[in-house]
Amino acid sequence: MKGTPLSTDITRVIAMDTYDIRFPTSRQLDGSDAMNPDPDYSAAYLVLRTDEPDGPTGHGFTFTIGRGNDVQVAAIEALRPHVLGRSVEDLCADPGLISRALIGDSQLRWLGPEKGVMHMAVGAVVNAVWDLAAKRAGKPLWKLLADAEPEWLVSQVDFRYITDAITPDEALDLLHRGKKDRAARERVLRDRGYPAYTTSPGWLGYSDEKLTRLAKEAVAAGFTQIKLKVGADLADDIRRCRAARAAVGADVRLAVDANQRWNVAEAIEWTRALAEFDPYWIEEPTSPDDILGHARVRAAVAPVKVATGEHAQNRIVFKQLLQAGAVDIVQLDAARVGGVNENLAILLLAAKFGVPVCPHAGGVGLCELVQHLAMFDYVALSGTTEDRVIEFVDHLHEHFAHPAVVREGAYTAPLAPGFSADMHPNSLTTYAYPDGTFWAADLARPAATAEATLEVTA
Amino acid sequence: MKGTPLSTDITRVIAMDTYDIRFPTSRQLDGSDAMNPDPDYSAAYLVLRTDEPDGPTGHGFTFTIGRGNDVQVAAIEALRPHVLGRSVEDLCADPGLISRALIGDSQLRWLGPEKGVMHMAVGAVVNAVWDLAAKRAGKPLWKLLADAEPEWLVSQVDFRYITDAITPDEALDLLHRGKKDRAARERVLRDRGYPAYTTSPGWLGYSDEKLTRLAKEAVAAGFTQIKLKVGADLADDIRRCRAARAAVGADVRLAVDANQRWNVAEAIEWTRALAEFDPYWIEEPTSPDDILGHARVRAAVAPVKVATGEHAQNRIVFKQLLQAGAVDIVQLDAARVGGVNENLAILLLAAKFGVPVCPHAGGVGLCELVQHLAMFDYVALSGTTEDRVIEFVDHLHEHFAHPAVVREGAYTAPLAPGFSADMHPNSLTTYAYPDGTFWAADLARPAATAEATLEVTA
Repeated sequence: MKGTPLSTDITRVIAMDTYDIRFPTSRQLDGSDAMNPDPDYSAAYLVLRTDEPDGPTGHGFTFTIGRGNDVQVAAIEALRPHVLGRSVEDLCADPGLISRALIGDSQLRWLGPEKGVMHMAVGAVVNAVWDLAAKRAGKPLWKLLADAEPEWLVSQVDFRYITDAITPDEALDLLHRGKKDRAARERVLRDRGYPAYTTSPGWLGYSDEKLTRLAKEAVAAGFTQIKLKVGADLADDIRRCRAARAAVGADVRLAVDANQRWNVAEAIEWTRALAEFDPYWIEEPTSPDDILGHARVRAAVAPVKVATGEHAQNRIVFKQLLQAGAVDIVQLDAARVGGVNENLAILLLAAKFGVPVCPHAGGVGLCELVQHLAMFDYVALSGTTEDRVIEFVDHLHEHFAHPAVVREGAYTAPLAPGFSADMHPNSLTTYAYPDGTFWAADLARPAATAEATLEVTA
Repeated sequence: MKGTPLSTDITRVIAMDTYDIRFPTSRQLDGSDAMNPDPDYSAAYLVLRTDEPDGPTGHGFTFTIGRGNDVQVAAIEALRPHVLGRSVEDLCADPGLISRALIGDSQLRWLGPEKGVMHMAVGAVVNAVWDLAAKRAGKPLWKLLADAEPEWLVSQVDFRYITDAITPDEALDLLHRGKKDRAARERVLRDRGYPAYTTSPGWLGYSDEKLTRLAKEAVAAGFTQIKLKVGADLADDIRRCRAARAAVGADVRLAVDANQRWNVAEAIEWTRALAEFDPYWIEEPTSPDDILGHARVRAAVAPVKVATGEHAQNRIVFKQLLQAGAVDIVQLDAARVGGVNENLAILLLAAKFGVPVCPHAGGVGLCELVQHLAMFDYVALSGTTEDRVIEFVDHLHEHFAHPAVVREGAYTAPLAPGFSADMHPNSLTTYAYPDGTFWAADLARPAATAEATLEVTA
């Protein structure tokens, strides 16, 4: 952008503000699992501001679990020169442009490529652009995508490294097919929402009593699937699965999630040991990088399904999981990969291979974001919600201007324009680390007496 | 470490200093390839200081190519609390302890896991500990490793996620076998060095005349293999390969390197189109994440060998490349993965599968580091240098206190204690970005007149 005189009759991005937002969730063991015993749910958050008076702002973020959120903010800031000065009209007409520019920065690319901290930063900025685009279009993101022409959607996808699994022409065919009866599905979505399942009962740090109570509450609230964290201790897992199965009965699906705890052989043995409780899927049985390992686990534990994806770094890993027959369920995450554009690629890959997508959510704002992707997929791509559910965790939604709403076990279709990413300004000033009002007060107290003052819903 | 009173009779780590070091290499097109047209070779550098007066310091770094080096420094700094206050004796007696502590930080792990910016930061710190350990032992690192007991070496390896390919017992067997005739091989190494190949002639930005001249100089200097960058334009590549083959004759190996430029089908077509020049290997034909893609390329382009690894994120990816029969050559990098401990795992995997290791080097200091790993492998693990060569690029060695020395096409075994990671203090102060003396002067000049003032050897 340097040295280019800026025309005054074009709306431009004039600022990208960043925030290191952390919630002290570890103090209540919400979110505890076999690999993440004490997460402080956090967001490396950004706001794109334009020179349009009273115009909308674009919001995006990476979810992290505490330490290192500052590193993630630094990575987002490294992308600022690519964004400042850009025409907002151009950005919103073709978010693929900025997606390619960010992923293609040859020096930053070295830090991945397309994985980890730098790639998640790309995803945060790209998602903020889509938020801005949807607000300017006056539509929720799912509707913007569902209304878009197939040709334009295909132009938003980077097919590099995936053409051996799906070509642009094949993607176009899938999207044209997805358009059929779209209006009818949109009415169903607005009427009944999108099926959800809940992980809230199953955190590893909860007592059996709390687990049982929350599992029963989940069924009473209309959920037809719950999920339990497993993998720390087999005897505990057997006891907890028994309690959960007893609480929900035979007809509610019970998924279990090992959060990458096992080697391949352990994953197979442990999953078999839980088979008597009829687990619907085993999630993240081993390293998210181990495509061949997942394929072996899947072959060995059927009919228990294998699910993974929340830590799958990019479309290339998803491509291989599908090519290798390594997964029954694709668990994409809205903020792990390079943003909406890469998630379009992943949805197209899943549709091509006929594998259901059950998105990962929870954390900070992941439910808010990912519902849009699943709803687009239902209305205008896969055309079905059969065997598809979006994860729901009832944490921290109160910090969002348009929180995800789950009723009768289903996500209600969001109607506000945008990507549902806006956090309340007051939440940003309270939980900015380390200078926000909560943390400044907390860190000033002697360590021994520091206690949670945040009330999180569990 | 918080709150633990520090005993005064134990040597402890009291500081971890970090430096954002950048060299303006882009101005001469040194290092230019199909994906990286203008790299500014950089190092996110760290020094561990102890409270031992006149005691050694531990040096480590991540190599980057410019922008984002600050993000990498931020990631290294996020690890500081794990290091400060640690007993130097304990660290050096068992570097596996700190390796596991850094990789296992459950909150930081979310930022990978074990990949990208955060994992490279772990590697930089772990390598600095090994540098310190080798200096305190009074040995170059290769010798420290080669002299170590197999049981201790096995204890340094994290077998999580790789036991389906190699067990600790198998690793122990390989290391016991590697010990046989170790003294004889050490004499050969000290006498003749370790075979090298050179990439210096082949950068994409060089003219055919420069390529031809440098290729002839390489053969005259004793190299039996050179490497050319390819992948930007097929007609150019055919012309350049023809010139290179003419310059070196039929008996010198000519490797080509696409730096991840292609999809799977393109990789196969392009490599076949270069087959008439008898390329020894095609390096990074496609995404480093695409294990199944590499396997297909390999099956299609034989007898041209397939090489990859400089961007392979961790042992789990190497494991799968080997399990899938996707590579003929393992190109580990000293500073991409989690440091010496993870590279031990990768060397063991390669030995188990009988696949030669030809390490990636170049950049800033990668030659200095990786020679130690290859020399250990020769002396005490694989026991051979057949079909094994270490990459050599004659750039920026003058900034190191113990630069890699290549004579008659072979790396001379380094004899100075440590991991050869020490940069000259003057280089740190000159090339620190943006406040070092070089950059402060450079950035103060008007953009239009800024020119390279750094003389790099090409």
